[in-house]
Amino acid sequence: MSKPLNIGLVGYGFMGRTHSNAYRKVNNFFELEYHPVLKAVCARDQAKCQAFADTWGYESTETDWRKLVERKDIDAIDICTPNNLHKDIALAAAANGKMILCEKPLSMNTAEGEEMAAAVEKAGVANTVWYNYRRVPAVTLAKQIIDSGRLGKIFHYRANFLQDWTISADLPQGGAALWRLDAAVAGSGVTGDLLAHCIDTALWLNGGISTVNAMTETFIKERKHTLTGKVEKVSIDDACAFMCRFDNGSLGLFESTRYARGHKALYTLEINGENGSLKWDLHDLHRLQFFDYKDEGILRGWRSIHVSDSDHPYMKHWWVPGLQIGYEHTFVHQVADFLQSLSDKKPCSPTFRESIETQKVVDAVLGSAKSNLWSSV
Amino acid sequence: MSKPLNIGLVGYGFMGRTHSNAYRKVNNFFELEYHPVLKAVCARDQAKCQAFADTWGYESTETDWRKLVERKDIDAIDICTPNNLHKDIALAAAANGKMILCEKPLSMNTAEGEEMAAAVEKAGVANTVWYNYRRVPAVTLAKQIIDSGRLGKIFHYRANFLQDWTISADLPQGGAALWRLDAAVAGSGVTGDLLAHCIDTALWLNGGISTVNAMTETFIKERKHTLTGKVEKVSIDDACAFMCRFDNGSLGLFESTRYARGHKALYTLEINGENGSLKWDLHDLHRLQFFDYKDEGILRGWRSIHVSDSDHPYMKHWWVPGLQIGYEHTFVHQVADFLQSLSDKKPCSPTFRESIETQKVVDAVLGSAKSNLWSSV
Amino acid sequence: MSKPLNIGLVGYGFMGRTHSNAYRKVNNFFELEYHPVLKAVCARDQAKCQAFADTWGYESTETDWRKLVERKDIDAIDICTPNNLHKDIALAAAANGKMILCEKPLSMNTAEGEEMAAAVEKAGVANTVWYNYRRVPAVTLAKQIIDSGRLGKIFHYRANFLQDWTISADLPQGGAALWRLDAAVAGSGVTGDLLAHCIDTALWLNGGISTVNAMTETFIKERKHTLTGKVEKVSIDDACAFMCRFDNGSLGLFESTRYARGHKALYTLEINGENGSLKWDLHDLHRLQFFDYKDEGILRGWRSIHVSDSDHPYMKHWWVPGLQIGYEHTFVHQVADFLQSLSDKKPCSPTFRESIETQKVVDAVLGSAKSNLWSSV
Amino acid sequence: MSKPLNIGLVGYGFMGRTHSNAYRKVNNFFELEYHPVLKAVCARDQAKCQAFADTWGYESTETDWRKLVERKDIDAIDICTPNNLHKDIALAAAANGKMILCEKPLSMNTAEGEEMAAAVEKAGVANTVWYNYRRVPAVTLAKQIIDSGRLGKIFHYRANFLQDWTISADLPQGGAALWRLDAAVAGSGVTGDLLAHCIDTALWLNGGISTVNAMTETFIKERKHTLTGKVEKVSIDDACAFMCRFDNGSLGLFESTRYARGHKALYTLEINGENGSLKWDLHDLHRLQFFDYKDEGILRGWRSIHVSDSDHPYMKHWWVPGLQIGYEHTFVHQVADFLQSLSDKKPCSPTFRESIETQKVVDAVLGSAKSNLWSSV
Repeated sequence: MSKPLNIGLVGYGFMGRTHSNAYRKVNNFFELEYHPVLKAVCARDQAKCQAFADTWGYESTETDWRKLVERKDIDAIDICTPNNLHKDIALAAAANGKMILCEKPLSMNTAEGEEMAAAVEKAGVANTVWYNYRRVPAVTLAKQIIDSGRLGKIFHYRANFLQDWTISADLPQGGAALWRLDAAVAGSGVTGDLLAHCIDTALWLNGGISTVNAMTETFIKERKHTLTGKVEKVSIDDACAFMCRFDNGSLGLFESTRYARGHKALYTLEINGENGSLKWDLHDLHRLQFFDYKDEGILRGWRSIHVSDSDHPYMKHWWVPGLQIGYEHTFVHQVADFLQSLSDKKPCSPTFRESIETQKVVDAVLGSAKSNLWSSV
Repeated sequence: MSKPLNIGLVGYGFMGRTHSNAYRKVNNFFELEYHPVLKAVCARDQAKCQAFADTWGYESTETDWRKLVERKDIDAIDICTPNNLHKDIALAAAANGKMILCEKPLSMNTAEGEEMAAAVEKAGVANTVWYNYRRVPAVTLAKQIIDSGRLGKIFHYRANFLQDWTISADLPQGGAALWRLDAAVAGSGVTGDLLAHCIDTALWLNGGISTVNAMTETFIKERKHTLTGKVEKVSIDDACAFMCRFDNGSLGLFESTRYARGHKALYTLEINGENGSLKWDLHDLHRLQFFDYKDEGILRGWRSIHVSDSDHPYMKHWWVPGLQIGYEHTFVHQVADFLQSLSDKKPCSPTFRESIETQKVVDAVLGSAKSNLWSSV
Repeated sequence: MSKPLNIGLVGYGFMGRTHSNAYRKVNNFFELEYHPVLKAVCARDQAKCQAFADTWGYESTETDWRKLVERKDIDAIDICTPNNLHKDIALAAAANGKMILCEKPLSMNTAEGEEMAAAVEKAGVANTVWYNYRRVPAVTLAKQIIDSGRLGKIFHYRANFLQDWTISADLPQGGAALWRLDAAVAGSGVTGDLLAHCIDTALWLNGGISTVNAMTETFIKERKHTLTGKVEKVSIDDACAFMCRFDNGSLGLFESTRYARGHKALYTLEINGENGSLKWDLHDLHRLQFFDYKDEGILRGWRSIHVSDSDHPYMKHWWVPGLQIGYEHTFVHQVADFLQSLSDKKPCSPTFRESIETQKVVDAVLGSAKSNLWSSV
Repeated sequence: MSKPLNIGLVGYGFMGRTHSNAYRKVNNFFELEYHPVLKAVCARDQAKCQAFADTWGYESTETDWRKLVERKDIDAIDICTPNNLHKDIALAAAANGKMILCEKPLSMNTAEGEEMAAAVEKAGVANTVWYNYRRVPAVTLAKQIIDSGRLGKIFHYRANFLQDWTISADLPQGGAALWRLDAAVAGSGVTGDLLAHCIDTALWLNGGISTVNAMTETFIKERKHTLTGKVEKVSIDDACAFMCRFDNGSLGLFESTRYARGHKALYTLEINGENGSLKWDLHDLHRLQFFDYKDEGILRGWRSIHVSDSDHPYMKHWWVPGLQIGYEHTFVHQVADFLQSLSDKKPCSPTFRESIETQKVVDAVLGSAKSNLWSSV
């Protein structure tokens, strides 16, 4: 019989749903020593919290996360709150010896991230950050190909995360649904929300970034604030682009915006090496594009790999070749890997410590956009 | 509180998994009056059956489906066995007043299907057949567009289901894993297995088929049989193509094979009408291609619709725009619709009765392939 | 200095333009022993004929093809007339010892084709039929791959030619612009016009076809005739689909229509072999899709080959990698090959004799559609 | 009868071929008052020059461009030399009252461009720069859509020009074939060669650029020089990326490299507006992608427009719907427009004056890459 791992979830928003679904499904598809138990969910609004608990089968509810992190029957705290609460919850959870699974971005800034990493290390508790796109099978396959050396020396890396959902000037900012538009709560706009994903994957696939040079823009300068009811200045970045240099000598180019009409959640990445290239995008996440220069000349072309075979990463746990999985499965994979890491007594990447690197790049990007200068990471 | 619906599942193979997953997830995503309870799973191999029960959380096991269908604590029987058992189980289940969810194809042939439909109708029990591809959101959207009359008079319908997994002559036939290659158990090869899907969708989208003209082929004539250990004649059709005429005057062209190298599970369909056309394929199931002749001339083009918005069929229950769902969700949709149909006291399409139509086409196709003549449905 | 080859063109329609352009360009791009000289163009309407001659630089005009074929200063007759004139012109040209380049389809039927082939063979004159799609570089590359044996045993061949330009019931039939809708002039509808292309390529790539089984339809039963001004019965086939068996044991499926809304000239072909598959379509004619089963398992995918490198067929004569050519270049290639064949004293495929094979399949298809039976080729 | 326009071409390289082809074809497809006459071609190597003249039908040759520009029988000078000769030839041609068609980039830098523009304006001679990609029908269609206001307020513009042909360290630099790798002759690397195209299109489609911030890299630091035979420092930029701000408030992101394995000549552009977006790429130049937010919500998708209808820009001059044109046709279009502009007594965009704007951006980009600072255009 597998061992229970009692989960205490903080926050019941979009991420609360993706994580809950992952906890519930993981043992149906992966053979693991541990199985998550949905012990408690915590949110300030008791009625909504209870409704969420009922839907997902949480055994209990809390309205104060300080109580939750102190509960003896909880093994791991899952932080799905807005970004400005990550640090306090994580520090308290660590102090109470809880494992922590924290939504991305880790923190509001590097300094907070350092505190958080120090706390979990001091407490000696397992920790991970939900940069779920690493665990899209096609992205994991990209990692395998890159690590095999098959691409040779890398020259270029580029990534975009394009959305279009904030184009209307009538959209308000702030509050439970739209805290991502409120810099005081989110830290930043697309940089911390979307580019953080791109940066995490880039660091994982292509190594460290040394310097960045960024530009940001806020297209809609004022929006009504949901909480105050008043029209207030918008402080987040609606769009951000940056150039960078990686430690391996390659050049990087990143862009994110919520004003690219026609793109819903188009995270795309591409890497160009001496002997091959890879491309991927989130709108068809089950495919990886691969160009292999070592193919016979007249037969070279970008291969569209339908990543659904049993020997593709994670896929033996799902269906049969040709039958695609989707977005939610990336979270199941992360839970599976986290549980396996407990058995293996190894860290589950990215850890808090590792995710500070993403935070550093985010900070450098925002700094460069302000200073109009190249900024070291 | 929602009401329990006690499920008794027969068979624990690939379809047993897809259905179990659907039962477990449906109430996390859909608000329904009923919730499935995994009461019992039944299979001849007790050890394997128990392992399956443990993985999926079934409360009990049976090794004889005759016992299962008699259990008082079971409300609905889900038939996931090889095709040659569908009829007997269904008749017994109906006789015991159980609702029935039957895997496709409904039966080995039309005659069996008629018996089954008569039985559930006599018993007055809810029934449905798992033609899950109707409930791919993109396919459901296609249905909505067609029903709106937007395409105008229909001229053509074409569908393929191309696979490549049986090309090796070393692959055996028969047994638990490969019963689909054994005509005695499966009824037929690609015609009943794959074309049945294409036919069901076609009838749903484009109405009745009046006459067919088919060709079949068995490329590998002999294979070792898993059960006997001997090399035996292969009786299934490895490939089948047929032309047909629909009642609405349009022409149909269908093809299926397991010898199309490079295609894993490529179900594609296309419909051409006077004012527009639609295309879809299973390898990118979250997209629908739509050509609208009423668009301004110089701006006409095939639209690639990423079916992931909250106003797309079923999608409000899942994530946010741009985040795709996959294969398994089609089964969740069918369970959701089945449970809703109980509340609405309406049939859940396709019912046994409706699925006989698909069976009739399958029979006509196989008959035509034998007679080398056009065959009426 | 290269040697002149004096061309006499009959017909100044669409094909007259494509051929004239090819004659004018070929020596700018190909080093050849011969160069075409635009000696004369012939058409019944003297004014239009002269205008065409002025545009393209023909030295003279004729209004009677019988005169043209007798002119001593003409080396080769290019037949671009409606199909019902091919035979008479070809027989007369051959009798006068002229080389012949004849538009496809070769003839109204097999019997005519036999006469024509006999005539050119008796006269000993070079001859070719403009099945230009063989000389799309991507299609020629497909031929090379197939001939290399790389695909292994072939299981399937399928081809479509889908158009949508005759959907309107207001379109008249007949006359100079619309003779393709008049069976008396065109011989048949999509079968001889479009499927003839598909069949020619199929025979070239995949060998002989032994039996066929076809269905045809005329969606618009009556149209005003341009010449008579009266509403008359439409005798052509608007759509045709057929199944067939190739001599190599593979199955074929073909379809053509002018009622597939959204497709302008979508000739697509696909071939599936034991070890690989190929796909191509005319809407992106500069690309070939190739699936190679011998690629490493987890990296297998359809390669999209941008056929624009100097080692791709014909491409060293054009631009640089990445810069695509288009439709018209296929005719330049055919002229280049024809001129080269004169130097090499070899036939230029497809010859009249070879094109009879396509005619035989066309006849069998039309026969089967009438008899509702399988028909031997 | 149309009037002759006597052309004197300087340079017989790749661009000499594309222009010669355009001059020869234009009157076959466009009805124009003027027709180009291939009067003379000029190059230092007499034998090669004569061979080129023979291939293309030039009436005479010159080995000194100073003589060519003085010939009384020449109306227009076409400059196809390496960039470092553009200015001198243009000034001399203008002084002799010749019209000038100059290859891009106009000049080595803005200062040269100013001199050249002043010279042609003082001489009052027609002039144009061969930024041929404006005249890809799909790009011209994009311009029409943007000018119609259909996209609304523009937020983003991005363009790439990715190649992979200089990855090998064994490739030498300089000389007739590889002058693009020699900064003394080319002025710069990808910035002046490839990004100049992207910038020209961007300025045309999206208006002026005010400030830029760039990064460049030279991956291979030394290459053997073809002329000296010695290994020498490489001074060109192998790769360049820049961020910018347009006058209309939109953000721009540009990148070019010759080290993106798998991309031959992948010029891509995308523009995102409030109500719609457009995408295009050179590898499938006959298609335009269009997203229209005003489409009904559930039916929105990127439309792939096959730009081959007779009402698409330039396309009525070519074939029939579905039959694509290629790269070379862009030059035919430019010649056609140039000849028409003579009849209309209007400038043919982009003129020398207009092309200075591109030069200014190029200079600012190279300056920013050097200074590591934002640079005003």
